[in-house]
Amino acid sequence: MEKKLNIITLLTDFGLKNAYTAQMKGVIYSIAPQARCVDITHCIPHQNVRVGSFILESSVDFYPKGTIHLGVVDPGVGTIRRGVVVVTSKNVFIGPDNGLLINAARKQGNFEVFEITNDSLFNETISQTFHGRDIFAPIAAHIARGIPFNQIGRKIMDYIVLPDLKPKITDYIVEVDVVFIDDFGNIITNLDAVTFHSFMKAASTCKVNIKGKTKQIPYIPSYGYISENQLLITIGSAGYVEIALNKGNASSILGLSIDDTITFDFS
Amino acid sequence: MEKKLNIITLLTDFGLKNAYTAQMKGVIYSIAPQARCVDITHCIPHQNVRVGSFILESSVDFYPKGTIHLGVVDPGVGTIRRGVVVVTSKNVFIGPDNGLLINAARKQGNFEVFEITNDSLFNETISQTFHGRDIFAPIAAHIARGIPFNQIGRKIMDYIVLPDLKPKITDYIVEVDVVFIDDFGNIITNLDAVTFHSFMKAASTCKVNIKGKTKQIPYIPSYGYISENQLLITIGSAGYVEIALNKGNASSILGLSIDDTITFDFS
Amino acid sequence: MEKKLNIITLLTDFGLKNAYTAQMKGVIYSIAPQARCVDITHCIPHQNVRVGSFILESSVDFYPKGTIHLGVVDPGVGTIRRGVVVVTSKNVFIGPDNGLLINAARKQGNFEVFEITNDSLFNETISQTFHGRDIFAPIAAHIARGIPFNQIGRKIMDYIVLPDLKPKITDYIVEVDVVFIDDFGNIITNLDAVTFHSFMKAASTCKVNIKGKTKQIPYIPSYGYISENQLLITIGSAGYVEIALNKGNASSILGLSIDDTITFDFS
Repeated sequence: MEKKLNIITLLTDFGLKNAYTAQMKGVIYSIAPQARCVDITHCIPHQNVRVGSFILESSVDFYPKGTIHLGVVDPGVGTIRRGVVVVTSKNVFIGPDNGLLINAARKQGNFEVFEITNDSLFNETISQTFHGRDIFAPIAAHIARGIPFNQIGRKIMDYIVLPDLKPKITDYIVEVDVVFIDDFGNIITNLDAVTFHSFMKAASTCKVNIKGKTKQIPYIPSYGYISENQLLITIGSAGYVEIALNKGNASSILGLSIDDTITFDFS
Repeated sequence: MEKKLNIITLLTDFGLKNAYTAQMKGVIYSIAPQARCVDITHCIPHQNVRVGSFILESSVDFYPKGTIHLGVVDPGVGTIRRGVVVVTSKNVFIGPDNGLLINAARKQGNFEVFEITNDSLFNETISQTFHGRDIFAPIAAHIARGIPFNQIGRKIMDYIVLPDLKPKITDYIVEVDVVFIDDFGNIITNLDAVTFHSFMKAASTCKVNIKGKTKQIPYIPSYGYISENQLLITIGSAGYVEIALNKGNASSILGLSIDDTITFDFS
Repeated sequence: MEKKLNIITLLTDFGLKNAYTAQMKGVIYSIAPQARCVDITHCIPHQNVRVGSFILESSVDFYPKGTIHLGVVDPGVGTIRRGVVVVTSKNVFIGPDNGLLINAARKQGNFEVFEITNDSLFNETISQTFHGRDIFAPIAAHIARGIPFNQIGRKIMDYIVLPDLKPKITDYIVEVDVVFIDDFGNIITNLDAVTFHSFMKAASTCKVNIKGKTKQIPYIPSYGYISENQLLITIGSAGYVEIALNKGNASSILGLSIDDTITFDFS
């Protein structure tokens, strides 16, 4: 890692009506005036650590080496849950020890996890409901200024990891989860492109069971290859199978939400 | 154009819940660390190229010479629609060849259009559903670093232009379109201030037909000159006639949406 | 105050679908290219000066000395209401003279207020509906470049101050106002932590009357100390008493909105 890191990304579930994110940025700029804050999103569904993890994981590849990723989806704030700094060969991740950061870090190979305990680095007053502002933001800023990781706290091995969420495969039946629904209403699943293609081979449509109903949905390279308001299956920009509706909202048409299950029948 | 351009604005219809915009910024900062991304908006109604064009056109005058404007409202992504770079004496515009960029460029006088074809400048992997991230963002960043435009692709003349959307004038009857409704519910039309004033002369109210009902609405310089919850006509900040409700939401009171028609009777 | 100020925060009620904020940033970067715009929020409830004031006040402590705070919640735009620059020993505030800025400035001790009258500093064309862009943004940028305050206009003493909004205390009964509801649905009151603790002493629950119904609500240090979907009272991150629902939305469960009244009974 270089000594001076400049980009600090922020991902939270705070929403946009309040000043919580702006307070974090103020803390960062007060300590590390050279830093540049970049928003990933602040509209993670409240307290949904898994969606936060998915969105963070889908973003980190596109940021330069040395970027600091600050993530705050933190239902356990103020309780005994720990704060952590996760260090890979490419990036640093800061946030609560609830699994939010680990999948993104793991993508980059080996990593080390430090528990945040050095309270001389925190804000003077600590709100028990806002560690994002009073602990994680100053830690991120100190890291941007080049503080050695071992001054933050001791290395730990028992950090929290989210349970794996892989499709369940039984012969030609693949049960997948809806991991995210984007602003267009596109339904992003946990079925990766490689597995999907190994099942599809030369087929051009898919049999999909959604909420008890079976549909044949064409598999095509992008939205505009089909008539308006027709369903399609495509490989989304994160590399996962996605169900979409050309110029429409697939999730409201199909009544699907995050965490729902869909079954692909490739027989 | 100066060699080093720094401000890159982003206008999209992506919404705010996902990481698509953040991925584009990561790509830009990886290639052009000195660039500064500034959001125009990411809440263009999905796939609405005309609203995107209007919002972009209303913003460019306020940005310094040398600003790069990146616009992605792109229902045809991944199909044969081309990507373009539009160069004026003041700015550079990058995005899909669907008319999104041309009205803004035209405001600045003569312009040249280059088709984006040099794939050595693109991201290594190209998602067929996200050229904003994998083609337009890296092109913007390379332009910020000073790459000559002729290395991006050949000049073209047959770029797409949106059909003109001018008020229809018959004697004293002027039929206008609702081109945008802002967050306050103010209804912005395509009737420009000069044409409006030439009809109004010394009159202080307007006869307006909205959805079959005729109303007399006062014309006043700003919202606060009328009682609360009263309709008014004013010249909005983009220089077009606007129907508003003091401290209220005109569009929901009147049931008007983008693309609806309103008739002014100046007889 | 140092000569060169760089951070300019923006707080408005403009919402996120339009380009109004982006136009202001363009104006700022055209005049003061070294400035860095940071959004506080643009989702203040439309025309709600009091909420704007509360959010601004809750943010300023976290920003470095020399920060310029630009606030535009401006229902009187284009009328005779004045524009002001408020100068403290730590920050500069710019916006309409309607009380929006004063509470935040007052927190920092003594302050001076200048009326904005030097129109040679404004944009060339002034929209009567958008002084944020055509007057306040260029003034902020000129201040960032180091213009002396007395070149902006004369000092005034009769600036507007919002009426005080303090809890009404009668013996052990404390009537408080809902001053803000955040994106989580947490209900922030105007009852400060010190007053609250002086009443609570060693008690661990509170009797609260909300919309005619009396509830016992436990007082705990943070959300995660109680079962899901249980109400709690805590000290929020702005130092005020807050009613929340662990992993849920207290404001929709309780039917409470901004400006509603709640009664605490500490007898």
